[in-house]
Amino acid sequence: MGLVVQKYGGSSVANAERIKKVAQRIVATRKEGHDVCVVVSAMGDTTDDLLELAAQVSPLPPGREMDMLLTAGERISMALLAMAIANLGMEARSFTGSQAGVITDSTHGRAQIIDVAPGRIREALDHGHIAIVAGFQGVSQDTKDITTLGRGGSDTTAVALAAALNAEVCEIYTDVDGVFTADPRLVPTARRIARLSYEEMLEMAASGAKILHLRCVEYARRFALPIHVRSSFSTKTGTWIVEIPEEEQMEAPIISGVAHERGEAKITVVGVPDKPGEAAQIFAVVADVGVNIDMIVQNVSSVATGRTDITFTLPSSDLTTAVEALSKAQASIGFESLQSDDQIGKVSLVGAGMRTHPGVTAKFFSAMADAGINVEMISTSQIRISVVVREDELPIAVAALHSAFDLDSTGDIATVYGGTGR
Amino acid sequence: MGLVVQKYGGSSVANAERIKKVAQRIVATRKEGHDVCVVVSAMGDTTDDLLELAAQVSPLPPGREMDMLLTAGERISMALLAMAIANLGMEARSFTGSQAGVITDSTHGRAQIIDVAPGRIREALDHGHIAIVAGFQGVSQDTKDITTLGRGGSDTTAVALAAALNAEVCEIYTDVDGVFTADPRLVPTARRIARLSYEEMLEMAASGAKILHLRCVEYARRFALPIHVRSSFSTKTGTWIVEIPEEEQMEAPIISGVAHERGEAKITVVGVPDKPGEAAQIFAVVADVGVNIDMIVQNVSSVATGRTDITFTLPSSDLTTAVEALSKAQASIGFESLQSDDQIGKVSLVGAGMRTHPGVTAKFFSAMADAGINVEMISTSQIRISVVVREDELPIAVAALHSAFDLDSTGDIATVYGGTGR
Repeated sequence: MGLVVQKYGGSSVANAERIKKVAQRIVATRKEGHDVCVVVSAMGDTTDDLLELAAQVSPLPPGREMDMLLTAGERISMALLAMAIANLGMEARSFTGSQAGVITDSTHGRAQIIDVAPGRIREALDHGHIAIVAGFQGVSQDTKDITTLGRGGSDTTAVALAAALNAEVCEIYTDVDGVFTADPRLVPTARRIARLSYEEMLEMAASGAKILHLRCVEYARRFALPIHVRSSFSTKTGTWIVEIPEEEQMEAPIISGVAHERGEAKITVVGVPDKPGEAAQIFAVVADVGVNIDMIVQNVSSVATGRTDITFTLPSSDLTTAVEALSKAQASIGFESLQSDDQIGKVSLVGAGMRTHPGVTAKFFSAMADAGINVEMISTSQIRISVVVREDELPIAVAALHSAFDLDSTGDIATVYGGTGR
Repeated sequence: MGLVVQKYGGSSVANAERIKKVAQRIVATRKEGHDVCVVVSAMGDTTDDLLELAAQVSPLPPGREMDMLLTAGERISMALLAMAIANLGMEARSFTGSQAGVITDSTHGRAQIIDVAPGRIREALDHGHIAIVAGFQGVSQDTKDITTLGRGGSDTTAVALAAALNAEVCEIYTDVDGVFTADPRLVPTARRIARLSYEEMLEMAASGAKILHLRCVEYARRFALPIHVRSSFSTKTGTWIVEIPEEEQMEAPIISGVAHERGEAKITVVGVPDKPGEAAQIFAVVADVGVNIDMIVQNVSSVATGRTDITFTLPSSDLTTAVEALSKAQASIGFESLQSDDQIGKVSLVGAGMRTHPGVTAKFFSAMADAGINVEMISTSQIRISVVVREDELPIAVAALHSAFDLDSTGDIATVYGGTGR
């Protein structure tokens, strides 16, 4: 049997009892005959405690030192996990990101992995040891400083190590049973999805499904590495994210699921001169203040005025920053006014079968109409339809789509749908 | 101006407020024109908290993983200290023991430093940065695993780095004003000692003065590196530990101070056959169970029986272990019985001037006699006299010697005398 990489998040190792449970699961996998490499996040509240300490000594701590501080978190959890495994009679060795060969660029707080050189991990596995690796961290190629990978960092560490070690599978353990057809808190009849293609999971993640981060799925797709998202509290099969050959896709369900995102806002730039380069100017101003935009809509311009309106969505936490930056640039860009709205949400329908099944779009909009929901913006890809609606209408929109596309379960009710930590 | 290495213990960085105070002191030293390298221990209770966590997951955690766990402590304190310095407008960079080039053997929990290669520290200093280094930790030469240095480890890190960097001085900051002529809790008239030779400090440390660890003083002596022990709560000059040329020693005070040690025990091995190799057998048995012995006394053997008694002292925490080991070996060694006593203490008089001033021994024992104290064992070096007395008579013995050798202060009362942490 081959190598399994397992990743456990902060809630799975939140205290000594849970660490011991995780150790049992790891030892069981090892006893089945697999080589096992484990990636672990910091214990539950550790990161918050460390951030609080940092805030007490400095309002704006340097990124290098913040990374040095935060990486203490995984150091603690991984050493404790190795101890718990040793206590069950198995040999375990913990390794920092740097020791595990996770090489990154020098962008503190959100470093990108540029290489993985897991020589020490391979050596430990060859000795029959269980390797425990700190997630979320690496060492910069240029400065040899400790870095952190930012959001989704531990999942990405796990996938990157699994790819570098030619693992059979990367198992991502979380507090839910897998990826669901919708958030069960909104849709009690939501079902666990057994299998998703990388493309579908990417669209789900980009559309607000918090269970896996985009970057980790992208990494897995690049190396065609199977991911198994499953619960650390049960032994049930979860959701497999795999490469699905085109011929199989024909027989796959048309629709995988409904994702949604709260905390969205939109800005309309009114009366933009309708000439080349105007939109580029607007988005350059927004990008310069570090704000990522999502959907963009440009109205047909008025022949009478030679002006047009441009609307885009962004995280509502960035709304003030973006509005201020645009206001400052009003004269140079030459638009008439700004309108903003932070009471919106996004709902998306994702499914690879959409490509080959006409009529999905029509059914989508009739479901919205039947539920009495006004659609404010539309964006589509080959395998996704997303619309912006009033935030307070999100639950109705999600449930209406889930039902219209026959995703409702007739079986048991899904467990609570949660997000991943780091 | 040259390089100053400063070491701050756990109580000096116990919380955010204290870390900010320490940062101010470091910045002040830098602004005087010195290059500054700082060695820091873990914050106050961090180590105890981590030990408690370890105990919760495993009764006997592997040393490698224990070291991985505990080194998270300095990682936190050093990053916070670097942040606090940055907040005062100075550039600071924190480094783990491994990054600072502290190379050790592979003895987890009490590794020995075998080399210091501070290339990254030198580079940081050359850039005008303040270097913050994690005390107590290193990386093993053979396995590249993280190690800890055990007791006195942070002081030793500081002295070793100072030696490798050719520092002018290694300043050891603590919660008292320096080394005192006696423990001020026992002798309120105890005075701060302005200057001590390495030999005197070694004898003081070996005799129970907890302010500096033996290994750190030994390291400093080997490299003739001046140590300045001083308070982190004041700017007063503390105690300098330096090489004192022989001609100056003639004029130095005859006696430096009185040290004492509680928590001692003694074992008497009764009726040992008086022939070569018997004592060696006894001490081999004790050494095999990892117990360090201190003073040894052998009585004149009885001509009638051809047997003798051997008495030695050891830490009282090791008494049970040693007695059990000896009992098991009774038949093979052939002694008659064992007696043990854990109600003893040791008091020592230290001073380089003893070498050249006759009469010190006579005065010592008449002071003991005048105070009505029975001396149970005696051990001497060229610059030290130590005796074992009843533990409850220790305070009287210390005060009597302090007074007899004119060490009593006429000035201000000393502040409380504490120990160092790691």
